[in-house]
Amino acid sequence: MADQTPHLTITPLGGLGEIGLNCQIWSTPDSMVLVDCGLMFPEDYHLGVDVVIPRFDHVLQNRHRVRGIVLTHAHEDHIGALPWLMPHLKAPIYGSRFTLALVEHKLREHGLADRVELVPVSPDAPLVLGDMTFRFLPVCHSIIEGYALAVETPAGRVVHTGDFKIDPNPLSGPGTDLALFRDFAGEEGVRLLLSDSTNIERDGQSLGEREIMDTFRQLFQEAEGRIVVTLFSSHIQRIQEVFDLASEFGRKVVVSGRSLMNNIEIARNLGFLRAEAGMILDAVTMPPMADRDLVLLVTGSQGEPLSALSRIIMGEHKQLCIHRGDTVVMSSRFIPGNARAITKLINELYRLGAEVYYDKVRSIHASGHAHRDELRAMIEAVRPRYFVPVHGEYRHLVKHCRLAQECGVAQERTIILENGDPITLTPDSVRFEEHVPVEFILVDGKGVGDVGHSVLKERHILGGEGMVIVVLVVDDTGWEVLHGPEMLSKGFVFEQHYNHVLEDAKCIVLDIFENIPPGETERLQDRIRSSLRRFFRKVLERDPIVVPVITTI
Amino acid sequence: MADQTPHLTITPLGGLGEIGLNCQIWSTPDSMVLVDCGLMFPEDYHLGVDVVIPRFDHVLQNRHRVRGIVLTHAHEDHIGALPWLMPHLKAPIYGSRFTLALVEHKLREHGLADRVELVPVSPDAPLVLGDMTFRFLPVCHSIIEGYALAVETPAGRVVHTGDFKIDPNPLSGPGTDLALFRDFAGEEGVRLLLSDSTNIERDGQSLGEREIMDTFRQLFQEAEGRIVVTLFSSHIQRIQEVFDLASEFGRKVVVSGRSLMNNIEIARNLGFLRAEAGMILDAVTMPPMADRDLVLLVTGSQGEPLSALSRIIMGEHKQLCIHRGDTVVMSSRFIPGNARAITKLINELYRLGAEVYYDKVRSIHASGHAHRDELRAMIEAVRPRYFVPVHGEYRHLVKHCRLAQECGVAQERTIILENGDPITLTPDSVRFEEHVPVEFILVDGKGVGDVGHSVLKERHILGGEGMVIVVLVVDDTGWEVLHGPEMLSKGFVFEQHYNHVLEDAKCIVLDIFENIPPGETERLQDRIRSSLRRFFRKVLERDPIVVPVITTI
Repeated sequence: MADQTPHLTITPLGGLGEIGLNCQIWSTPDSMVLVDCGLMFPEDYHLGVDVVIPRFDHVLQNRHRVRGIVLTHAHEDHIGALPWLMPHLKAPIYGSRFTLALVEHKLREHGLADRVELVPVSPDAPLVLGDMTFRFLPVCHSIIEGYALAVETPAGRVVHTGDFKIDPNPLSGPGTDLALFRDFAGEEGVRLLLSDSTNIERDGQSLGEREIMDTFRQLFQEAEGRIVVTLFSSHIQRIQEVFDLASEFGRKVVVSGRSLMNNIEIARNLGFLRAEAGMILDAVTMPPMADRDLVLLVTGSQGEPLSALSRIIMGEHKQLCIHRGDTVVMSSRFIPGNARAITKLINELYRLGAEVYYDKVRSIHASGHAHRDELRAMIEAVRPRYFVPVHGEYRHLVKHCRLAQECGVAQERTIILENGDPITLTPDSVRFEEHVPVEFILVDGKGVGDVGHSVLKERHILGGEGMVIVVLVVDDTGWEVLHGPEMLSKGFVFEQHYNHVLEDAKCIVLDIFENIPPGETERLQDRIRSSLRRFFRKVLERDPIVVPVITTI
Repeated sequence: MADQTPHLTITPLGGLGEIGLNCQIWSTPDSMVLVDCGLMFPEDYHLGVDVVIPRFDHVLQNRHRVRGIVLTHAHEDHIGALPWLMPHLKAPIYGSRFTLALVEHKLREHGLADRVELVPVSPDAPLVLGDMTFRFLPVCHSIIEGYALAVETPAGRVVHTGDFKIDPNPLSGPGTDLALFRDFAGEEGVRLLLSDSTNIERDGQSLGEREIMDTFRQLFQEAEGRIVVTLFSSHIQRIQEVFDLASEFGRKVVVSGRSLMNNIEIARNLGFLRAEAGMILDAVTMPPMADRDLVLLVTGSQGEPLSALSRIIMGEHKQLCIHRGDTVVMSSRFIPGNARAITKLINELYRLGAEVYYDKVRSIHASGHAHRDELRAMIEAVRPRYFVPVHGEYRHLVKHCRLAQECGVAQERTIILENGDPITLTPDSVRFEEHVPVEFILVDGKGVGDVGHSVLKERHILGGEGMVIVVLVVDDTGWEVLHGPEMLSKGFVFEQHYNHVLEDAKCIVLDIFENIPPGETERLQDRIRSSLRRFFRKVLERDPIVVPVITTI
């Protein structure tokens, strides 16, 4: 039986301690709502892992109480885990039309589209889910149709900013209207603000999209050859800018890369992207065109090896190539783990004779997240009683709390939550609940959660040192070797170079065999493993996985 | 028989196309000299590789002509490959006293110290090697006693900047005195300039060490607890700054980390580092001290898991810990491949309650490489006829050539060389020679060059997907299975979860066995491999290495 006194319990399942995996459970006496359902891309040490998702146990244990999933916007770190949750949960998904269109596309890819109810919401109408009323306040971000959540809860008014920036002079759309936040907060201010911490370390204000477009316009003016643009494929506003400039400068646009083509189609169908008839050409059927009449809009801003840009550079793209005189614009941030792959691409582009512009050398990308002054403006707009920073690594959360304190929130009311640490707000108090398990789930192919610490550790050794298989068949008396020892290796050494080492290893195995009484197969395996590892460490300074395969016939 | 007309042929073995692995062969009618002999740390895809070194074939084929190895300074990317060259080459090594001290330490670790002749050089006396005369011009860099090379060659005067910046107001030492470069260039200017391209993309001037010290002083003033400083362990000047500030603020210094302790000892013995008696404490024997009386100087600025800082944070350091109130200063750049490891450390430090300063939030590190304005000043000082940018990735080389053109070097005389592309200068011409093989050599443990493409590829699959061993023993008629099929896996799946999958795989193996005539073991292995891979891809979307071990008894 749930606690019936008016309250709101927020349980972060992810996003507090990392950028990614945003997912929170909001629970009241009457209802449970999931706010966002994001994934995270694997870290370096997550060998072979495709994606990382939150642990949904706590949601599924309470599935009868779940009234719905409310999405702030359509980035992967906010919607990407839905395909792994929805097979187990029957609940409607609420979000903007564009957000839901991307969700629908994703669910269809996983064969789940027909099983899920998608309910569009808008700033025009509040959404009542049990004893919570959600209002959707448009925010400016690097994707269209993102919302902050302004929620009336049994514990008072709560604002969750989602991912936002404040572009005072947006190119299109409503931008982030702080007046709406102020109105919602009213005289008293809100009871709780949950705010995006990504860029707390950046002073001042984020660059506006208008400034980005100005830089792009200069590049269009200067470019004599083709212009190749790569960007995050969900950044519909910036795609619109490229279309508009292409039109202004009389160029046609060729799009390459699956995710870009999908998103452009979705956005055009919903009326979020305008392109003149005939402006978008098909790479396969397009007529020969002069370089200066063309823009290539391609995937691959993170140096992904299978993306359009990588394939073009490596000469593996069927229709497109890059040559001297082309201008390449990499209009996105370099995600740290990808920096080497991206700079490798840039060097290759220069080798092909192209000129390349990226964030470091020209203002052709703006972050979608508020800088420090904007974060301050948000806090001042809603004047929260309690402040919980979200969407950040630990240091960001610490620094965002300090900013809230500078804005007048008492130190003891700025609260760093970590994943799995629920907090309960009542109309007149706050308390911390018992930790819930939130170790993330690794997804590798169709395996969800089966790749854990021990498999990763094996992969780590296999990947760094390789492995050696020792095959030995002995007769059932255990005294006679019928076959072997045979040595097979993978990823260990180039065997032709090291024949003598493998021969020496065989002698060691025979020696061990002769000194262990018949029948003690396990002991024999242990000794082979430890002796060969010691031997390889000594002669090669390598430490492969040794797998003794001993068969008794 | 070498070409006897006056000439200089420069063959870059590394460093042109990457930051690292700096090594050039300078060859004249009379002599051959190696300029620097650096290593590179492995890229992400160099799984299990310790270091990457140049291919020395071309040097060793001409070993009778090699007069010596001239080192510009003691960073790993300039001296690190010596332990792999010196066993095969008898030639003296020339460098500054400090450079040679670090080289000696390195050679001793490899058991080579007694076999190699180390000859100190200085700005006071030129070094004559056959028909080349080397002068050593002091340059400011992130290590002490670095030199640019000003060389009289049969083809004219050549300047090789080494790694440099121009700190107009250095804290100590001579700095980079452009007047010396101007003098050497004379009225005519030099015939060739080879110049450091690392920071060509950074405008203006690099930060001076004096500004870094000012920021450090502020931090010393503000800090109420201990101050923990981490930096590159060869950065003797900055270590001196820490010592000086510790003295100024009445703090003692505890040093932890092997490379820091070594370098400090070497620098103190040579008189390059001054510390008051009793200022440096031993972590093991030090008395209890108040936090505000201590500075910890520790290794680990790149987040290396075994470094002092990592061990302190993880609670694995025997003597030292970090707690609330400590100030941690990460005084070095984040090498891109290490960014995630470093930010993880920073978050942990905040979790422990420390305050952390790093490049992004405070000016506590200055690059050791000249920015654009300084690079321009160098070109203007020596007014080269030919310009070859070195020490950079391809895009840096392109942009550095453009800068030289802005400074008046004709476009056709700004030359991008790549590794293995020799260029020959005569007193009145320049020509390109035939490419020499320079594919880098991977060092893994004691194996030099045995880890190549195929081993790396196996490691890549093993690391990402794991492997499955299928054991099958058949009788010598080939019709009967004596043992198996048995399935062993590593890094593949958590076997308890997937018993049913492995059982199904066994059935597939038996099915194949029954359909292949006896004796065709190779065909049997191929079929098992391909069928099981297809099966695992289908049921698990994973593609491990499958190793069939089939034994006939």
